[in-house]
Amino acid sequence: MSGSAIVLLSGGLDSATCLLLAREEGLEVRALSFDYGQRHAIELERARAIAARYGAREHRLVRLDFPGAGASALTDPTLPVPRNDLGSSAIPVTYVPARNTLFLAHALAWGEVAGAGDIFIGANALDYSGYPDCRPEFLEAFERMANLGTKAGVEGRAFRIRAPLLRMTKAQIVKRAAELGLDFALTTSCYEPGPAAEPCGACDACLLREKGFREAGLVDPARQA
Amino acid sequence: MSGSAIVLLSGGLDSATCLLLAREEGLEVRALSFDYGQRHAIELERARAIAARYGAREHRLVRLDFPGAGASALTDPTLPVPRNDLGSSAIPVTYVPARNTLFLAHALAWGEVAGAGDIFIGANALDYSGYPDCRPEFLEAFERMANLGTKAGVEGRAFRIRAPLLRMTKAQIVKRAAELGLDFALTTSCYEPGPAAEPCGACDACLLREKGFREAGLVDPARQA
Repeated sequence: MSGSAIVLLSGGLDSATCLLLAREEGLEVRALSFDYGQRHAIELERARAIAARYGAREHRLVRLDFPGAGASALTDPTLPVPRNDLGSSAIPVTYVPARNTLFLAHALAWGEVAGAGDIFIGANALDYSGYPDCRPEFLEAFERMANLGTKAGVEGRAFRIRAPLLRMTKAQIVKRAAELGLDFALTTSCYEPGPAAEPCGACDACLLREKGFREAGLVDPARQA
Repeated sequence: MSGSAIVLLSGGLDSATCLLLAREEGLEVRALSFDYGQRHAIELERARAIAARYGAREHRLVRLDFPGAGASALTDPTLPVPRNDLGSSAIPVTYVPARNTLFLAHALAWGEVAGAGDIFIGANALDYSGYPDCRPEFLEAFERMANLGTKAGVEGRAFRIRAPLLRMTKAQIVKRAAELGLDFALTTSCYEPGPAAEPCGACDACLLREKGFREAGLVDPARQA
């Protein structure tokens, strides 16, 4: 099943970088995005633009209506998105129950049908927000489960969960994306963008992105718009 | 998170038995069913009836639109459902890519939100159809992954994937269900039922069910209807 990949594409900086990394390896890319009622639905438009710009063979948008989708500050408008709160040790209220498990399960189903063995996810365990489903031990456990629970896996066409950004700092990601020629203005990271899709500048995702650009010595065009 | 369970309820004999087993343990039950375009959509009506009859606190039907859903004889009307073909060693064409991974992922999300630590699935590895995602090693790997990838798991409120029928023969399941008072007429097992929901009598699921009742020395009321 080499030669072909599923890329989980949120419309953010990290997943766009994953798409470019998969393309750099010469892989044919199918991009997969989810509408799960997130406040920042603008990211779905961005995902579409990124998939088109960087040569994804196909882009699918799956509407996810799962129990628990509403139990997060990312989806429940009555729960405030934390501001200027980066680095607190608890799992934040922006955690969405079992989100990456569901995302990866859909990618696995598509990968099995399309003959794509590599599944790319932009998870990051260094400059990240404390989500349990972004940790290496979770991704390894998912890969193991995937190969035990599918026809392809049992028949020896192994799936690989690829998280190339897992141990990179946000600054390293920004630098790598710049090398690969990513048009940063296409990407959006903010959890709670304004009416014209402008980033709030204060949520975890904005703070991490800003830190990454600053440490990389680059200017974020999305902040200038 | 004791005291409460999510039960994957297909409307078949096995998952109905799981619901009764969970209730026998004194667990509060939330039942979860999926519409994934299966030919045998009658099972969703049966699931609703079973959940209502046996005191599920809630029954949810999730519409699953996943890539790969169509790649099975259970969902693609151009692929014939095998008849009188029980016991061939290959994974059958009724296999649906990553189906149980997706089902369990939804149950996990609901379980996390509802505080239900036990997830019941009617998987069976003895008298079964050769699906890789019904094997104990898959279910164990899913449980491990679930506890690494969720807030509840990380915080020590462990999830358990419960497959009480895993090592039972179909005859043993039928006997146990009879002891628990299951109204077999409510359940449906056939992959390709007729217009009045009558079982075909020849698909794997019908053959397994018939064998189970015969070996248990019981009569299947669903076959008499």
